[in-house]
Amino acid sequence: MYAIIVYDIKVERVNKVKRYLRKHLNWIQNSVFEGDITLSELEIIKKDLKNIINKNEDSVIIFTVRSEKAFKRQVLGIEKAPISGIL
Amino acid sequence: MYAIIVYDIKVERVNKVKRYLRKHLNWIQNSVFEGDITLSELEIIKKDLKNIINKNEDSVIIFTVRSEKAFKRQVLGIEKAPISGIL
Repeated sequence: MYAIIVYDIKVERVNKVKRYLRKHLNWIQNSVFEGDITLSELEIIKKDLKNIINKNEDSVIIFTVRSEKAFKRQVLGIEKAPISGIL
Repeated sequence: MYAIIVYDIKVERVNKVKRYLRKHLNWIQNSVFEGDITLSELEIIKKDLKNIINKNEDSVIIFTVRSEKAFKRQVLGIEKAPISGIL
């Protein structure tokens, strides 16, 4: 399974979310992580994120596709994190 | 085709990008748009975005999947834009 996670977190919690996600996925752009994970890893990430965020103030959207081959990625402008390094 | 567009744009151009994308896709979260588009619409969006952004300072990542059914979306915390309204 391949996941793309985008988030909009209040400033007091955003670094904690970023530090947490860096341990599990690849940072590709401000507030955007992606990477190959298993279903059980996804469940752990969701559980842990729920403990970090304030569900009344913060927003996390998780897109999952069967595999990385299921989607195409195109970059305009600068590539903040050389994604080719991830593939 | 279903597109998810995430962007990291310098402050002087970000509103212009947001106003442009609002005409084509659905705003779902800070710096994140998604929606159903054709290949030709995608090519127009890419051409227009290239004219708005500064390719040395700004970053736009476009994820495309065959159709919305090809991916799953899960939201933790608040849903900034009731996505159900989009489906």
